[in-house]
Amino acid sequence: MARLTVLCGGLGGSRFADALVRAAGADAVTVVGNVGDDLEVHGLHVSPDLDTVLYTLAGLLDEERGWGVRDETYNARETAGRLGAETWFTLGDRDLGLHLVRTELLRAGVPLSAVFARLAERLGVGIRLLPASDEPVRTMLTTPDGELDFQTWFVRRRHADDVLAVRYEGAAEARPAPGALEAIAEADVCFLAPSNPFVSIGPILAVPGVADAVAERAGPVVAVSPLVAGKALRGPLARMLETLGHDSSALGVARLYEGLASAFVLDPADTGLAPAVEALGLEAVVTPVVIVDPAVRGEVGRAILDATVRA
Amino acid sequence: MARLTVLCGGLGGSRFADALVRAAGADAVTVVGNVGDDLEVHGLHVSPDLDTVLYTLAGLLDEERGWGVRDETYNARETAGRLGAETWFTLGDRDLGLHLVRTELLRAGVPLSAVFARLAERLGVGIRLLPASDEPVRTMLTTPDGELDFQTWFVRRRHADDVLAVRYEGAAEARPAPGALEAIAEADVCFLAPSNPFVSIGPILAVPGVADAVAERAGPVVAVSPLVAGKALRGPLARMLETLGHDSSALGVARLYEGLASAFVLDPADTGLAPAVEALGLEAVVTPVVIVDPAVRGEVGRAILDATVRA
Repeated sequence: MARLTVLCGGLGGSRFADALVRAAGADAVTVVGNVGDDLEVHGLHVSPDLDTVLYTLAGLLDEERGWGVRDETYNARETAGRLGAETWFTLGDRDLGLHLVRTELLRAGVPLSAVFARLAERLGVGIRLLPASDEPVRTMLTTPDGELDFQTWFVRRRHADDVLAVRYEGAAEARPAPGALEAIAEADVCFLAPSNPFVSIGPILAVPGVADAVAERAGPVVAVSPLVAGKALRGPLARMLETLGHDSSALGVARLYEGLASAFVLDPADTGLAPAVEALGLEAVVTPVVIVDPAVRGEVGRAILDATVRA
Repeated sequence: MARLTVLCGGLGGSRFADALVRAAGADAVTVVGNVGDDLEVHGLHVSPDLDTVLYTLAGLLDEERGWGVRDETYNARETAGRLGAETWFTLGDRDLGLHLVRTELLRAGVPLSAVFARLAERLGVGIRLLPASDEPVRTMLTTPDGELDFQTWFVRRRHADDVLAVRYEGAAEARPAPGALEAIAEADVCFLAPSNPFVSIGPILAVPGVADAVAERAGPVVAVSPLVAGKALRGPLARMLETLGHDSSALGVARLYEGLASAFVLDPADTGLAPAVEALGLEAVVTPVVIVDPAVRGEVGRAILDATVRA
């Protein structure tokens, strides 16, 4: 059995992890997930990216909306709002149950990685789900209006502010979660999921030891493009590339992974970029990367595996 | 305007407070409420008795069931249970919103009394709602199976265990909430609501200074019988009186308030007990005390006020 490790963010990453699970089985897959956009809501610890991975693989995600749980209600939020609490970060009632359980475990001293192991087991999610770190790493974005934490920028202000710089608060003091470096070193293929390189993959690589573990791998490191024909399948990546001074295309993303990845997966819509990607020293693999529809994920995953296990 | 202060527990007490509000207006009423059955659920601070008062007066109580909020859902609980959390103490989703807001305020250092003031204001509840203490007081019940905290005995074990003794953990070190002693001293009438004397009124009186403030009042102290014809309108009081060695009747309750109350309100069904109540040195006031139906509460409250403001 191939051992596949995926550095991944939220929606795009979770869909890619799902594609690998459908192609290779849950036992093959380890996710090292982003905690840079974790936050406290009503005193509860919320891990939006890793929760999206968990919900996607448990079959609970609201796929239409791309976040939260299916068949959700919002009654706790309604009460909290009536009582004067801020409710710009929406938590549904079903989702709240998970945050309550997690926060209680964290307060009792259980590390975040152990909490996720328990949640994954209870939800019947067979992959190994590791946060990049058990310690806080917070993605902070410099905008013309000052520095904002990720969720304030993304949710509260609807990513309307130009992003001029990104930093990962706490990253320098954080340690990789137990097993994360080994999972990266020992995998047959290490993937950088089709997630935002600045706010999803970046905070993972910023944890000391992680980028080195990826760069020093003997086997392939395969980055999958989060852009198709210059557009993000979702989210503000295209514009963020521009305001940060990069090419707003798959090539712009490939450049960010120069020296780190050995191969770059491009959608057939971007075939024209393959020579430029090869010129960076990355093998260009052209195969579909669009995995919005759960029904196509297995096939897309198999094609990517077929093309990259030999990469 | 008469100033009315009520020492009260959960359902019975909340209905009595509602009766006084309907009879005399919200501005007239101060509740000093029981915190002896407060608990933590999923790390959240829950105050079942005071919350019942709050919900009753806000018109939000599920009156059929006698606890929790109307039109409630239980989706957070379902998730929490699926993730392995204990769920014997049911929290609905709407209710959870309140516990989240309260717990966050408490963790930020806001005292419980100030939290309740804020909640009451937000919910448009015009009475003054004071916990007996901002500090923890926990009602502990000795049973043949050992000592149990109140909610374990009442909810988890469905009050099946005989109660052989009662104590109020933390009471000796607790201080009355700001304003509670003054509200008791300065009221025109101080009521002991038709609540359980052991697990509702007892933990309030156990806070140092409260029983003295009640006993030393110049004006009337009016206890309202929680039993009618030997039966509690709700809850395990009748059996608890028996196992604790008391008369299982309104007279048994009146004896517990000897030396503390100046008058005792008996339902007409218990007219026969009036001479025995008078023999204790309490004025016996015979007037209906059944206030289950919200529609009768105003009338019952007015009759009790008419009979006792002159008591």
